[in-house]
Amino acid sequence: MPNPSAAMLVIGDEILSGRTRDANMHYLAGQLTARGIDLKEVRVVSDDRTAIIAAVRALAVAYDNVFTSGGIGPTHDDITADCIAAAFDDTIDVRDDARALLQAHYDRSGQELNQARLRMARIPSRACLIDNPVSTAPGFSLENVHVMAGVPSVFQAMVASILPSLTGGAPLLSRTLRLMKGEGDIAGPLGQFAQAFPDVSVGSYPFQKDGIYGSNIVVRGSNASDLDRAMAALAAIFEV
Amino acid sequence: MPNPSAAMLVIGDEILSGRTRDANMHYLAGQLTARGIDLKEVRVVSDDRTAIIAAVRALAVAYDNVFTSGGIGPTHDDITADCIAAAFDDTIDVRDDARALLQAHYDRSGQELNQARLRMARIPSRACLIDNPVSTAPGFSLENVHVMAGVPSVFQAMVASILPSLTGGAPLLSRTLRLMKGEGDIAGPLGQFAQAFPDVSVGSYPFQKDGIYGSNIVVRGSNASDLDRAMAALAAIFEV
Repeated sequence: MPNPSAAMLVIGDEILSGRTRDANMHYLAGQLTARGIDLKEVRVVSDDRTAIIAAVRALAVAYDNVFTSGGIGPTHDDITADCIAAAFDDTIDVRDDARALLQAHYDRSGQELNQARLRMARIPSRACLIDNPVSTAPGFSLENVHVMAGVPSVFQAMVASILPSLTGGAPLLSRTLRLMKGEGDIAGPLGQFAQAFPDVSVGSYPFQKDGIYGSNIVVRGSNASDLDRAMAALAAIFEV
Repeated sequence: MPNPSAAMLVIGDEILSGRTRDANMHYLAGQLTARGIDLKEVRVVSDDRTAIIAAVRALAVAYDNVFTSGGIGPTHDDITADCIAAAFDDTIDVRDDARALLQAHYDRSGQELNQARLRMARIPSRACLIDNPVSTAPGFSLENVHVMAGVPSVFQAMVASILPSLTGGAPLLSRTLRLMKGEGDIAGPLGQFAQAFPDVSVGSYPFQKDGIYGSNIVVRGSNASDLDRAMAALAAIFEV
């Protein structure tokens, strides 16, 4: 049985303008790989209602899980929650369970739960809340879409909250052989090797260090002994 | 007239598995913003023929320009060029102009232009080559899709080669007001400000530093005097 599949949707003008460098994609990719969920696609869209709804719908039908980051704060440009509700034809309003979490949090800190902060309690009616141990304002899951904050510390905490509840697969294992040879010198035998070991996937990633071209050969698969045999053959081919 | 639009397609299993952190998206975003080309969407897909072709076709019809990174090297997992040709129903083979570039390069360095390296001269018949001053093997443009390498130094050199030939727009200018107040405390007046200045876009980006919550208010637009007026009003609202 293949591993469950996933996609990620990063929402935010600040990524597309180059103001902010996204950190959440790389983090989520590593977490999903370790859990045996195959991240198949990532999309980044702007804070635009039409673009967000279209992307959510396309990804939700194509993959087992969709993870979003960004756009669930208290300001006027945070429109993700409303877009997710619209994408699934759900209603959205301030929900009592989310409001109670926020009320307790702001009571503790002596701050006012004002109209702006109350926006963070707007949750689609059919969604389940995702715990936020960092700053309380919850994420939520609606059908197979998991909606999380864009601030990396909060995003990571929400991933930790939701991931144990999702069905995983066989974790993808990988081994790397680092060769101080350019790809052009190894591509022929490497292609033959990849054909001879169809149970593993073989990738080649060039690098340049101090003016020397090298290649990292990465062999991936879910079975450790398959990988061991492949790596032994690879070492023999390249005499390392 | 609106600025030209663009999308980016990042191709590579290594990004989706979390092995490699993409650096090209952030670089391209900054370059396009400075040239007045609006990056509207980014997609990341794996080294999968069906996924690449579908993404190229979808993005090429939706945006003025599409920039791809990754998958044009000499190894068996480099399938981007063939997929681009297929996406546009073009033929692809080793092309004389690209072969001549590679032959001269490997003659100079005393290396053999072997079968693997010759793969990098496979270019769709209707494409124009993109100059690669770093490592010679060219990228190419086919219709509105610009195909570039994934190695950041080569990607950046190719962007520098192609960008001056593209129609730009009014560069997007931005100004930032950094407030040591959480979003929940500023969201109300900020939303009113955004409504009062419809000619600029207003984003709020929370941060946390030494346990204190703060917000960067970013005002964007293509007209410097619009931005000046907006920033003066913003400073008055928040008394800074």
